[in-house]
Amino acid sequence: MAQFDVDAMEIVWVTYKEMEEVDHLAHERTKAQFDVDAMKIIWAGSRHAFELSDRISRLVASDPAFRKDNRTMLGRKELFKNTLRKTAHVWKQIIELHLSEEEASRLRFYVDEPAFTDLHWGMFIPAIKGQGTDDQQKKWLPLAYKMQIIGCYAQTELGHGSNVQGLETTATFDPETDEFIIHSPTLTSSKWWPGGLGKISTHAVVYARLITDGRDHGVHGFIVQLRSLDDHSSLPGITVGDIGMKFGNGAYNTMDNGVLRFDHVRIPRDQMLMRVSQVTREGKYRQSDVPRQLVYGTMVYVRQTIVSDASCALSRAVCIATRYSAVRRQFGSQNGGQETQVIDYKTQQSRLFPLLASAYAFRFVGEWLKWLYTDVTQRLQANDFSTLPEAHACTAGLKSLTTTATADGIEECRKLCGGHGYLCSSGLPELFAVYVPACTYEGDNVVLLLQVARFLMKTVSQLGSAKQPVGTTAYMGRVEHLLKCRCDVQKAEDWLQPSVVMEAFEARAARMSVACAQNLSKFASPEEGFAELSADLVEAAVAHCQLIVVSK
Amino acid sequence: MAQFDVDAMEIVWVTYKEMEEVDHLAHERTKAQFDVDAMKIIWAGSRHAFELSDRISRLVASDPAFRKDNRTMLGRKELFKNTLRKTAHVWKQIIELHLSEEEASRLRFYVDEPAFTDLHWGMFIPAIKGQGTDDQQKKWLPLAYKMQIIGCYAQTELGHGSNVQGLETTATFDPETDEFIIHSPTLTSSKWWPGGLGKISTHAVVYARLITDGRDHGVHGFIVQLRSLDDHSSLPGITVGDIGMKFGNGAYNTMDNGVLRFDHVRIPRDQMLMRVSQVTREGKYRQSDVPRQLVYGTMVYVRQTIVSDASCALSRAVCIATRYSAVRRQFGSQNGGQETQVIDYKTQQSRLFPLLASAYAFRFVGEWLKWLYTDVTQRLQANDFSTLPEAHACTAGLKSLTTTATADGIEECRKLCGGHGYLCSSGLPELFAVYVPACTYEGDNVVLLLQVARFLMKTVSQLGSAKQPVGTTAYMGRVEHLLKCRCDVQKAEDWLQPSVVMEAFEARAARMSVACAQNLSKFASPEEGFAELSADLVEAAVAHCQLIVVSK
Repeated sequence: MAQFDVDAMEIVWVTYKEMEEVDHLAHERTKAQFDVDAMKIIWAGSRHAFELSDRISRLVASDPAFRKDNRTMLGRKELFKNTLRKTAHVWKQIIELHLSEEEASRLRFYVDEPAFTDLHWGMFIPAIKGQGTDDQQKKWLPLAYKMQIIGCYAQTELGHGSNVQGLETTATFDPETDEFIIHSPTLTSSKWWPGGLGKISTHAVVYARLITDGRDHGVHGFIVQLRSLDDHSSLPGITVGDIGMKFGNGAYNTMDNGVLRFDHVRIPRDQMLMRVSQVTREGKYRQSDVPRQLVYGTMVYVRQTIVSDASCALSRAVCIATRYSAVRRQFGSQNGGQETQVIDYKTQQSRLFPLLASAYAFRFVGEWLKWLYTDVTQRLQANDFSTLPEAHACTAGLKSLTTTATADGIEECRKLCGGHGYLCSSGLPELFAVYVPACTYEGDNVVLLLQVARFLMKTVSQLGSAKQPVGTTAYMGRVEHLLKCRCDVQKAEDWLQPSVVMEAFEARAARMSVACAQNLSKFASPEEGFAELSADLVEAAVAHCQLIVVSK
Repeated sequence: MAQFDVDAMEIVWVTYKEMEEVDHLAHERTKAQFDVDAMKIIWAGSRHAFELSDRISRLVASDPAFRKDNRTMLGRKELFKNTLRKTAHVWKQIIELHLSEEEASRLRFYVDEPAFTDLHWGMFIPAIKGQGTDDQQKKWLPLAYKMQIIGCYAQTELGHGSNVQGLETTATFDPETDEFIIHSPTLTSSKWWPGGLGKISTHAVVYARLITDGRDHGVHGFIVQLRSLDDHSSLPGITVGDIGMKFGNGAYNTMDNGVLRFDHVRIPRDQMLMRVSQVTREGKYRQSDVPRQLVYGTMVYVRQTIVSDASCALSRAVCIATRYSAVRRQFGSQNGGQETQVIDYKTQQSRLFPLLASAYAFRFVGEWLKWLYTDVTQRLQANDFSTLPEAHACTAGLKSLTTTATADGIEECRKLCGGHGYLCSSGLPELFAVYVPACTYEGDNVVLLLQVARFLMKTVSQLGSAKQPVGTTAYMGRVEHLLKCRCDVQKAEDWLQPSVVMEAFEARAARMSVACAQNLSKFASPEEGFAELSADLVEAAVAHCQLIVVSK
C-alpha cells in the first residue's frame, strides 16, 4: 500500500492516542438539560432503528476490512482496488450473516464509501423494475440480483445534464434485422459521469433518442451490454473509460464515473425498456396507458431520501465542530487559569448553533417527507393526481434547500475548527468533498428552485379562483392578510412564540411571490419575464422552502 | 508512477483534445468593448510585468518537468517525491538561466505547488534577517542562501495558533553551560503545522517561552538544528514527523507540514535571535531600543501580498467559470436551433458577475496596499508611528475580507460549472483546496475582524476629541451627517453615480460602528460587552472593510 512513510506517521498516531486518553467532553456531557438516551431514539426514528444502527455501526467499526483511516492518502489505483475489496466484503457479510434488507442498507451506510454497487442497486435495477415489461424483468432481474451482470445508469452526456430532453445519443430502429442501432453522433453526445461505468459495469440502461421510420420519439431507455462476460473487455463499437479525478481525498474517487461512446452498436429490439412505450416488429411506435405521472412518484421518493441524507451529513459535521469547540481553548486566560473554550465565544456560537438547529430541522422535515411520499403513493394508486404538483414542487424545493445548506454548512464547520479542520484527520474535508455532488445530481439546485418558482407563480395566478391552494401552499389562501399584516414584536422574547415566527416566514414568502407575479405581468411574454426575473424568482422559491422547513 | 490505468484514460484525453480543436470562445472574444491588450497591461501592473509574466509562464508550460496534469491522482508519497523533483528543477533553472529575483519569483508562482522552499525563503530567512543580530545573520544567512541548510518556521503548536502569547514550548537558560534547554512540557505544546518541518528541514526558527533565573519573559525565537547534515536523521531529543493528509487532491499535500517535540534539547546561547532582546552570559534579560513597532511593518507587508494573491486566485476561478458559462449551453433551443449559453441566464449572471467585479476590485486594492506599505515604511524609518494603527487595522481587515470572499468565490465558481466543476480537470477543486488555508494563516479571519472592530470602537470613542480620524477612517469625521443622511436614489440609474454608492457604504459602516459603541457602553465592563456583542462587532468590521474596497 502506497502509504507516506509509515514510520514517520507513528508520532501522529501517538499524539492522537494521547489525546484520546482523557474524555475532554465529560464535563460538557454532564450539563445536558434533556434526556440524551431519549433523544437518541427520537433522532433514529424509533428504538428499533436506533438499536439496529448501533449494532451495525459497531460491526463496521470493529472489522479491519472496513478501515477508513488510510483512504485519503492512497493514489487513485490503490484507492479503487481498496473499494473493490470492501464492496466484495460487504456482499460476503450480507450473505454470511444473513442480513435483512434493512440491515444491509445500514451496513452500506456505515461502510460509507461510494461504489459501483450504489448505481447497480440504486439505479440500474430500479430502472428495469420501473420501466421494464414483466418479461424484461423476468429475464434481467435475476441476473442483476445475483450480480452475474453489473449495471449502471447512462443518462447524462458531456453536453447535457439538466436538459434530459436534449440528449443526443440515438437509438435507430432497423426493421431489416429487428434491432436498434445505438450511436453517439457528436462529441457532446458522449455519456459522461455515470457511476460504475468507467471500470466495472457489464451492462447499462442507456438513454437515447428513439428513431423509427425517420421520426424522433424523444428519449427512451435501452439495456445495452458494454463488456464481455468472459474477459471484461469492451464489446465492438464501444469505447469506455474512467473520467478521472474528482474533488477531494478519497471521497468520490472510489467511484469509477465513466465516459462511453457508441459506434453503431446493435442490440435486439427487446432490449428497449417497453413498459410505457413500445416499438413493434414493424417499427411502429406505441404508448401504453400506464400513467406518466408515476415517474414523479419515484422522484418524490428519491428526493425524500436526499433530504434525510442531508440531515445525516450535516449532523456529522456539526458534531465534529461542536466537540472541537468544546475542547479547543484559546485566549482569555485569567490569573494563569485555563483559556476560554471557543464554544463560549459568541462569534463561534452565531455560526455553529444555527447549523446545529438546521441538522435537527432537516431530520424532522425528512421524516415528514416520508409521510408525504406514502400519501402521494396511495393517491396515485387511486388515480388521484391532484396533490402531485404540490408534492413535486415541495420535494424539489426541499432537496435544493437542504443540500445547499448542508454543503455550505459542512464547509462552515470545517472553518469553525480553525487550522485543524484542514487536516483530513478531522474528517471534514472528505465529508465536504463527498457531499457536494448532492447539489448537482437528481436536479441542479438552481434549476429545481426555478421549477418551484413556476409552481408558485401558477399558485398566485389561481388565487381567488375556485382552485384553493393546498398543502405547503395553503398559507397563500391568506394572502390578503399576509400582504398587509405587521409584525407586533415588542421585545426579544416575543420571537420565542412559534406563531410570530411562522407568520413572519409566511408574510415574507407570500410578499416575495406576489411581487414576482406582479413584475412578471409587466412583460409582453411570460417566458421573457421569467428569464429576466429569474434571480428574484429563485429568492422567492427559497423563502417558500424555508417556510416549509420552519413549519414542519 | 501510480497512475490509474493509463490506457483507459486515453479516451478522456482524446475527448479533451477534440474539444480544444475549436475555439468555442471566438465569437465571445470579438464582442469585447474595451482594448484587451491594454487591459492585460493594467492587470499586470506594467508592460514590463506583463511581458515578464508572459515569458515565464510559457517557460513553465513548455517544460515537461513542471507538468501538473497528473498531480491530483498521485498517492501521497509519489506526490511528495514529485514536488521534490520540481523544487530541485526550479533551483537548477534559476541558476542555469541566471534568473533575476523577480523572474525567479514568477517562476515559483507559475510552478504553482506549495513546497518546503516557500517557508525556507519566505519565513526562515526573513526571520533571521528581521530578528537576528548582524553576527547571527553573517553566520546563518550564507548557509541558507546556498541551501546548505534548509529551515522552517516553528511557531504554531497543537494547542495554540491565534494566541501566540499562549505558546507552551520552553527555552530555559542554563548558566552552567551557557545553553538554552528547549523542551515540550505538554502534549499541546507539540509544534504542529509548520511547512517544511515534516520531512525536509534541517533547522527551524522555534518560538518558545524564554525562561531565565526562574522568570518567564514571554515568547522569543531560537535557531534549532533538527536533523543531521550527514544522514538527515533527527537529532537526539527531537521527535519529528509529517502530520498527514490535508484537504484536497494535490493542493497542500505537496507540503510536509510537520509535528515536532523536544525532550530537553540543548542549543548554544547565541542561537537565540537577539536583535530585539538579549540574554547575557550571566543569564540577564535585556531589551534593545529597536522599536517593537517594526514587527507591524512586516505584518503590513505580508498581508499586502496575501491580498494580491487573493485577486490572482479569484481571477483564475472566475476565468474558468466565465469561459465555461460561455461554452456551455442548456435548454432554450427554439426550432431546433442551438440552446442558450448559460452565461445568458440571469441566475448565472447574478452569481458570476459580482465575483468577476471582486477579482478586479481586489487587484486594485492590492496595488493601493503596496503604496500603503511604502508609506508606512517611510514613516517608520522617520520614527513616525502615527498612521501605524490605522494601516495595521486596514491590512488586517482587507486580508480577512479578501481571503474569505476568494475562498467562497472559488467554490461558487466551481458550482457555476455544474457537474463539470467537480472534476479535477476543471482546475477548480485543487484551486479551492490549496487556497482555503489563507483564511486561517497569518491571522484567523474572524480574529482579525475583531481586531478591526477594536480599532473602530477606539476611533468612535475619540470622535469629537482633538484626534481626527485619518486614512480609511476619515469618513468617521462626517459621522453626524452619515447618521442622519438619507439615500436620495429615485431610479435604478441613480446607483451608477459613484458618490451615491460611496455614501451608502459610508453611512452603513458608520451606523453599524456607532450602534456597537452605544451598545458597548451599556455593559459594566468593556471586555464583557465586547465578548457579548462580538458577532455584531464582526459585522461592523466587515462593513468598514467593504467600504475600503469600494473606495479604492
